[in-house]
Amino acid sequence: MMQRVLENFSRQAVMGMMGVRVLRVASGEVDLELPHRADLCQQNGFLHAGVITTVVDSACGYAAFTLMPPGADVLSIEFKVNLLAPARGQRFVAKGRVLKAGKTITVCHGELIAHDGETQACVSVMQATMMTMQPRVSP
Amino acid sequence: MMQRVLENFSRQAVMGMMGVRVLRVASGEVDLELPHRADLCQQNGFLHAGVITTVVDSACGYAAFTLMPPGADVLSIEFKVNLLAPARGQRFVAKGRVLKAGKTITVCHGELIAHDGETQACVSVMQATMMTMQPRVSP
Amino acid sequence: MMQRVLENFSRQAVMGMMGVRVLRVASGEVDLELPHRADLCQQNGFLHAGVITTVVDSACGYAAFTLMPPGADVLSIEFKVNLLAPARGQRFVAKGRVLKAGKTITVCHGELIAHDGETQACVSVMQATMMTMQPRVSP
Amino acid sequence: MMQRVLENFSRQAVMGMMGVRVLRVASGEVDLELPHRADLCQQNGFLHAGVITTVVDSACGYAAFTLMPPGADVLSIEFKVNLLAPARGQRFVAKGRVLKAGKTITVCHGELIAHDGETQACVSVMQATMMTMQPRVSP
Repeated sequence: MMQRVLENFSRQAVMGMMGVRVLRVASGEVDLELPHRADLCQQNGFLHAGVITTVVDSACGYAAFTLMPPGADVLSIEFKVNLLAPARGQRFVAKGRVLKAGKTITVCHGELIAHDGETQACVSVMQATMMTMQPRVSP
Repeated sequence: MMQRVLENFSRQAVMGMMGVRVLRVASGEVDLELPHRADLCQQNGFLHAGVITTVVDSACGYAAFTLMPPGADVLSIEFKVNLLAPARGQRFVAKGRVLKAGKTITVCHGELIAHDGETQACVSVMQATMMTMQPRVSP
Repeated sequence: MMQRVLENFSRQAVMGMMGVRVLRVASGEVDLELPHRADLCQQNGFLHAGVITTVVDSACGYAAFTLMPPGADVLSIEFKVNLLAPARGQRFVAKGRVLKAGKTITVCHGELIAHDGETQACVSVMQATMMTMQPRVSP
Repeated sequence: MMQRVLENFSRQAVMGMMGVRVLRVASGEVDLELPHRADLCQQNGFLHAGVITTVVDSACGYAAFTLMPPGADVLSIEFKVNLLAPARGQRFVAKGRVLKAGKTITVCHGELIAHDGETQACVSVMQATMMTMQPRVSP
């Protein structure tokens, strides 16, 4: 499972560009880690809401992917994000968790945990809908 | 108005990092442009959903900002994004439009238009809630 | 098309209970009307947000339904609603519009227009995802 | 706290009309119960998505309300709902939980648990944003 996630992850250029790495993969659960980077921030020096979304959406997508059949790919249909507090910290962990896996539709909950010195805080929550893209049968 | 938007925009490091520029500013309306960049893509070579969100959220935030009093700043409370089609193209225009501006809460509609050769397509829509951060009165 | 919508609509008990009626059906567009009813209000005498959602979700669902193949049924996967202003008026029109119709997934925009005396106001907007339920082939 | 919730709840006409009652009130947590009623269903005999939203939005709103100062009222700004499974059962419990309470904005998670004979299932999840309406100072 880890192998399939890492293989797919390595093809996501934006993950490499942002310095994201895979922390943990389990059935229906994926954690990704993003270090603080000044060039990913908004006007007040906190992580931009869209950057948060990029990492949490990927964590949710891979969480859904772990429960999909071999050969299938995952597609984000939609997500909704609430920003609870400024994303301030040295590193951030995005957690994706499957709430319900269906044949076509998988619903996930995601969150971003900011690690700032000794303290941790959940700074963002996501509710996301993923779709299973069935492998095309080759002729 | 353009001046205030450009000044704030220039402090958003992530906009510079992604190569986003301000195309148009009007009362309650802001358009941002993002060129195609391979390092902002997901595993299939399309713009990552989180990158789309980054640009459309910024367009919505600045659209709200144009209607806020001098000295105020804008904060994203939440947004919801639907992905309608793969974000494929040479350049992308994010349009942010204010639906309702209140004293504290402003609701926006956003979309991403992909320009692919001669064709244009709306590939993503956003519904977003922004908050006015009143300027602190200095003593 | 009107026939298919009305036939399905007549089986939605909650529509009858709330006094909703079909105003208009076109390809990818449905308008429903709800008269003011005191027993559908919240603590301040405005239409409850959930009642607004019931009518706008149905308008979106039927808008999607108009583009689905014969025999298919429609299912709401998810929706997001912003409340822009108190829903005050003598009658309310919920408008559902298809933004993108796919084989499995259809994305809609919805809104609720409050008619209060001579004035009209959009008091709520929805972004919704609908799914086509293919007819089961009977043996 | 229970007293304040019950007093406000009794003024929500739609709660009485639907037969909803308050099951449990704690700091940042409210559970509401809805019995099955045929006239609240959609075309397949399951609870309509809008009815689910009505009850879960109310549970979230009251959960936020328990943490607001005396005299304040609560207003739903927006919510997003995913439908995980058909809402089938004899009774339904809507759980509202505060994720983050701010001075102006409170973010909640909600869910609907369907009780069907001996089994329980979470059939819907909500992510909602509530606003504190400060009491007007009377002259």
